[in-house]
Parts: sequence; C-alpha cells; structure tokens
Amino acid sequence: MDAISVIRTKRDRGELTPEQIDWVIDAYTRGEVADEQMSALAMAILLNGMNRAEIARWTAAMIASGERMDFAALSRPTTDKHSTGGVGDKITLPLAPLVAACGAAVPQLSGRGLGHTGGTLDKLESIPGWRAHLTNEEMLDVLDTTGAVICAAGDGLAPADKKLYALRDVTGTVEAIPLIASSIMSKKIAEGTGALVLDVKVGSGAFMKNIEDARELASTMVALGTDSGVRTVALLTDMSTPLGLTAGNALEVRESVEVLAGGGPRDVVELTLALAREMLDAAGLKDADPEKALADGSAMDVWRRMVSAQGGDPDAALPVAREQHVVTARSSGVLTRLDAYDVGVAAWRLGAGRARKEDPVQAGAGVELHAKPGDTVTEGQPLMTLHTDTPERFDYALKALPEAYDVAPADTSFAPPQVVRERIA
Amino acid sequence: MDAISVIRTKRDRGELTPEQIDWVIDAYTRGEVADEQMSALAMAILLNGMNRAEIARWTAAMIASGERMDFAALSRPTTDKHSTGGVGDKITLPLAPLVAACGAAVPQLSGRGLGHTGGTLDKLESIPGWRAHLTNEEMLDVLDTTGAVICAAGDGLAPADKKLYALRDVTGTVEAIPLIASSIMSKKIAEGTGALVLDVKVGSGAFMKNIEDARELASTMVALGTDSGVRTVALLTDMSTPLGLTAGNALEVRESVEVLAGGGPRDVVELTLALAREMLDAAGLKDADPEKALADGSAMDVWRRMVSAQGGDPDAALPVAREQHVVTARSSGVLTRLDAYDVGVAAWRLGAGRARKEDPVQAGAGVELHAKPGDTVTEGQPLMTLHTDTPERFDYALKALPEAYDVAPADTSFAPPQVVRERIA
Repeated sequence: MDAISVIRTKRDRGELTPEQIDWVIDAYTRGEVADEQMSALAMAILLNGMNRAEIARWTAAMIASGERMDFAALSRPTTDKHSTGGVGDKITLPLAPLVAACGAAVPQLSGRGLGHTGGTLDKLESIPGWRAHLTNEEMLDVLDTTGAVICAAGDGLAPADKKLYALRDVTGTVEAIPLIASSIMSKKIAEGTGALVLDVKVGSGAFMKNIEDARELASTMVALGTDSGVRTVALLTDMSTPLGLTAGNALEVRESVEVLAGGGPRDVVELTLALAREMLDAAGLKDADPEKALADGSAMDVWRRMVSAQGGDPDAALPVAREQHVVTARSSGVLTRLDAYDVGVAAWRLGAGRARKEDPVQAGAGVELHAKPGDTVTEGQPLMTLHTDTPERFDYALKALPEAYDVAPADTSFAPPQVVRERIA
Repeated sequence: MDAISVIRTKRDRGELTPEQIDWVIDAYTRGEVADEQMSALAMAILLNGMNRAEIARWTAAMIASGERMDFAALSRPTTDKHSTGGVGDKITLPLAPLVAACGAAVPQLSGRGLGHTGGTLDKLESIPGWRAHLTNEEMLDVLDTTGAVICAAGDGLAPADKKLYALRDVTGTVEAIPLIASSIMSKKIAEGTGALVLDVKVGSGAFMKNIEDARELASTMVALGTDSGVRTVALLTDMSTPLGLTAGNALEVRESVEVLAGGGPRDVVELTLALAREMLDAAGLKDADPEKALADGSAMDVWRRMVSAQGGDPDAALPVAREQHVVTARSSGVLTRLDAYDVGVAAWRLGAGRARKEDPVQAGAGVELHAKPGDTVTEGQPLMTLHTDTPERFDYALKALPEAYDVAPADTSFAPPQVVRERIA
C-alpha cells in the first residue's frame, strides 16, 4: 500500500477500498503519509466525491485513530446535538439544561469559534470562573450530577480528524461534504452518545449556502450515525439571518438566560424547543414536556447547577464592552433582509471571534440587533448596536454592513423565513 | 494574495488571474506557499484544467523563477529536440551530432531516467570518461566548437519547476497536461533555443497512452513555444513497441553509433531523419541534407568530437553486462505486438533504470531484441536477450514479460505501426 496509489484511485474517480482507507488514515496519523499527499487526496475527494460505503469506512477509520467514550454507566439515556455553525447560534446554552431537565443526559462536547461563526466554549467562558477543560472523570461527574455538561472535547477523540481538519483549513479543502460529514460524525460517534440531533444550518451565515448542499450533508450524516447505531435525526434550519437578537459571547449568554427564564426572542425559543423535542424523542423520552420545563424554571435550575459545577458563578454580572456604536435605519418600511454573514463578520471584527486559533476573544464584543426581518422600521431608528472594548475596530466592522439589510415599502407583504425548514431522519 | 484563495479559484473551476499565478509560483519557490498547499492546487489543476492563457502565464512564472540562457553570440542558429520519453529512445544520441553536421547548433540539456523510461545522460555515461555536468562556459564552448552538446541542465533553469516536479512525483499529480506542458516548456524556453521540435510519444511505453492526450499535450506545448517566440513543431510518434532493438544504457549507445555509421535499425534511422529535418527546417536551414550527413560520415565526426570534448573516449570499448539470459518465442508465426512498457520494465528491473533519483544504474544492463512487430518468428528461436551484472534480477525481470508479445499465424496480414503518426505545428 502506498499513498500515490490511493491518491490515484480517487483522482481517477475510482472507489477507495476499505483497506486503502484504513491504511491512509492510520499512516497519516502516524506521519508516514505526508501532509502534501493527504492534501492532494483531500482535493481529489472534494472534486470527485466518496460514496456512502467509503464515507462510512473513512469515519470508522478516524474513530479508530483514538479513544471511544462510554456512557453506559449513566442511569439516563444520552442525547446530543450538533450544529454546523451560524451567527447568533447560542442554542446549545438553553438546550442542554432544558433537555437534561426533561430526563436525558446531555454530554455536549463543544468547540471554539473560527471566522464569522461563534463558538459555544467562547460564549460560556464569558461567565466569570467557568472552565471549558475538564478531565473525563470531571465531565462524567458533572453529567451524572446535573444531567448536562458542556465542555471542550479531549485530544483523545479522533486525533486523525484533528490533524486532517487543520490541514484542510490551510489547503482550500474544507468544503468537501464527505470530509465535513466524517469529521463531525467521527467525533460524535467516538463520544458515545446514544442519540444525536443535527442542526444543519442553511443560508448566507452558514457553511452550506443552499438547501441542496445542506440536504446532502444532513442525509450523509444521518446515514453515518444510523449505520453506527446512533439514533440520528437532522433539522435543516435557517441561517439567512442571525438567530435571536445578539451575536457575541456575553451578549448571547444573556439572551440564553432570558430564554431559560421563560422569555427571549421568538426564533431562539422555537428552535430550542424543536431541537429539544427531537433530542428527547431520539432518546426514547416521548412523554417529556420541554415547554413546561422552560416555564416552571426546572431548565433554569439545571443551567445554574451546570454552570456552578464547572466553576462558574451563575449570578455574576456578565462582562459589558467598553464602547458602543449605534447603526440606524437609512429608510422607513419593512425590514425584508438582515444578512447573517454580514452581521457575523461585523461581530467577528469587533472582537467576538478570532482569525487564528490562538487569538483571544473579547467577552463583551458583538452585535445587538433592534429589529429582525418582518419588523417595521423608521428611518433613523437604531437598527443595531455594535459593542467592543477597542473602538478602533468600529470602522472595519462597519465596512461589513453597508449591504447587510434591505428595507421595503411599508405596505409590502413579507413573511420572515421559517426557522425549521426540513427534517431528515 | 493568499494560497487558499488561489486554490479555491481553481477548485471552483475559475480562471487563475496572472497576478495569482505569478504570486503562487514565486511564493512557492520562496517557501511561503507550503508543499501541502501547492499539492492541493496541483490536484485541482489536474482535475479542472487550465486554459491557454493560464498555462502560458504559469510557464512564464516558472521561467522567471530562474536564469535564462542566451545563445545569441553563436554564429549558427540554435535548434533543440525534446522527447516525452519512451523505451529504447536513444534518438538524441545520433540526432544531435547529425543536425550539428548540417549547420545548426544543438544545445541538448537532458535528464536522467526514472521508472521504465531511460535517460539520455545515463546512456552517455556508459562511455568511459564522459562527463554530464558542465559549467555554462564549458557548455557554450563545446557547443561552439563541435556544434552540439548533450549535458545536464543546470540548477539555475526554472527552479520552481524542479521543486514542483518533485512534489508532483509523490502526490499523484504528475499526469496533468497543463503541468507537464509547462514543466517541459519552461526549461526549453529558459534554455534560450531558437527552434524546438517536440517528440511526443504515444503508446504503452509512453506517458501518453492514447492519441487524444498526446495531441492535447503536443498542441499545448506548440502554442506555448510559439507564444514565446520559439519556432516549435511536434511529431506524435509511436511508442507501442520499443524503438530499435535495444533498451539499456551501453546497448543503446552501441546502436546509436551504428546509426551514425550509416547502419542501425530502420525505425531508429527513420525517426532520427524525420526529427533532423524538422529541427533543420525550424532553424531555417531548409537546404540541409541529413541523409547525406549520415552517409558521408560527417555526423559521426561531430559525435566523436562532441564525446571527446566532454572527456569521453569514442574508441573505448563499451561496458558489457556479466550475465545473459535468452527468452525464446513460444510459437511460430508473425510477431504482431511487442509491448514497449513490458520491455521497459524488464530493462529497468535488470538494472538499466532506477527506482529512486539517487539509485545508480548498470551501464551494461538492459534488453536486446531479436525480432520486431511484423517479423516472422519460429517457436524456440531467441526473441530477446536480457543483460545484467546481477543475475538474481532475472526472475523479477522475467515476471514483466509473459504478456509482452503476441504471435499470430504465419499467413496473418499485419502492418507494423507507423513511426511518425502525426505532425502538429
């Protein structure tokens, strides 16, 4: 077996054999296959694709490169959610405690933001004292005692994926559906959850800009999960406009706490409940009532215990950015578009996100929205407030926004986008 | 400018801008673009192609990465030949002195063999004392005094190509016509020849297995040469069967000397004369008579002076391999196929070629043929003789040969393949 013959097989539109896949993933992890060989293979996969059997084997080989976790000792069924990433997507924060309050165990191994999309760990780290990094024992302990844990994935899960992802990031080979699907699913399957709900975002602020690509990614991942014995469902959800009214770390924690307190923006509540129902259903808890758990404060109780268990103070004041700048509406009428990507880029430039993995983020930075598509606006009214600790960033952030929204005459009939667009099981 | 955006452009089937091409070649040569990024780009080029403008700019950028030679001071017009490589392709050896004997200057910067195809320098090095490596001054001096020089290309010509070729070799991206064409032509244009004849081989023993690919490569290179002011012509020539009756270093030198002495196998003489006429025509020497220069010994005179000028003894006995093994015909009839690739692999395994750049070659090793397609053979007659210094190689070499030839009933009407199949100008 050698790297060139594996590359040639895929380059010439052939099907990789199980032996070729097992060998190339293992040899790459050990450093026998060089980065320049794996990147050529990744480009060939991006352009020529992989079939279902190849993707399943690729995923299995990445799982086999590291450890697998086991939640069998827990008394509750495990259920997990993964989002492909978007702008203002703070759903994990209210969702994990909500689903735990309904009787499931939610082991939520999360990541950090890169580029214009935020990261769950960055958001939670704006809570004074909160720790993202737990040992496996600590993680199981928080999960066992509170029902939910949100923490950083350990280095032991799918190390081949970690190495391959870093390579794809610098070689223009991120956008390959077989590689995205196997990257996500290898970690989720290795993590050992019994049920998984995928939130596949579609629209300008998402990785998948059109519904066809989102559908292909979703069905690929659902097949991978199902074939590995994980009950897997996917929702395709809108990411043409930011979720809720905030994009930024502490800003999103505040909004999540509002949802847990029974309030919060309509779209965040709707998506949180839709995902909670899917997670509970997949976990076999068909009689659970997440709406009640939000209303009666039991979800908020889990949240407070979960934050405390990881060193955070749920009552502490959240950081606020030192400087604000208000963007006003340039005309009156109906807001028909507020672009998720543009708002995400602005939040990123204000300091909420990072350009490189090692960059720090500002806890208070981001964008607060005062109107959403479908709302009526008046010329000169505040449309969004930009937050940052470093006011020299305002100019660069504002450059992302001139085309960020459309206002139509007040009598225009306009229906805002559906939050949940499709379900794939 | 950054590598990822250049990769993405080609990945998404876009046209690379001149600025992108100049930047990526220069940055790769300087080490700013990493190997893993260039290999992803090479795979995207292999699968999505480049148009004529992109290939021309890519070639120009590779030329600009190094020095350019200048033969303007010579009193004779310069003309050069490049073969894409085959089995038994010793044509450069009789051709360069022949064309010089007819009045042109022939600066033949050559390479070594890799894999099943032989290398001109390896062949000449079987002449005792002969030196492949000359300084630029020595090269010009040999060219000026004898009319022809065959030597190793210096490191200064198109260093970007040298680096890129080594990368393509290990990443399954050799077989990209735009990259093959720009690799060959960047060196030939930087070398500064006024005219160039391309011998594009087609068939099992060649890089291009079918005529369509050979045609595409030939017209791409002719366009590149013409656009750069080099009078360029291509012949598509047969490589389904070995050229002449020998494949191996000293064996091929011996056959070349036979041609210069007015003898030699019909196909070698025919191709040598066809290429000589094209080279002389492209150099503006339309009245030259290469047939006469072979017959009257003037080509042989240039050969002897050229070999001597580079330290070789044209009268020295050539090395002979220590061991021989004869392969006999398994039936009687007409030989209808003698596969160039199989014979090339056998010669390589006997020690005539190398698996890695740093391997040595055996001067005497190789395959001697006793029949060619179209010849009548009798069961049990010698079909080929294998030569090597290391008899333990016979078994492995013989493994390449069981499917190497076909014999049809004696009354079968069979026409051997045309030596020159097409001409592209």
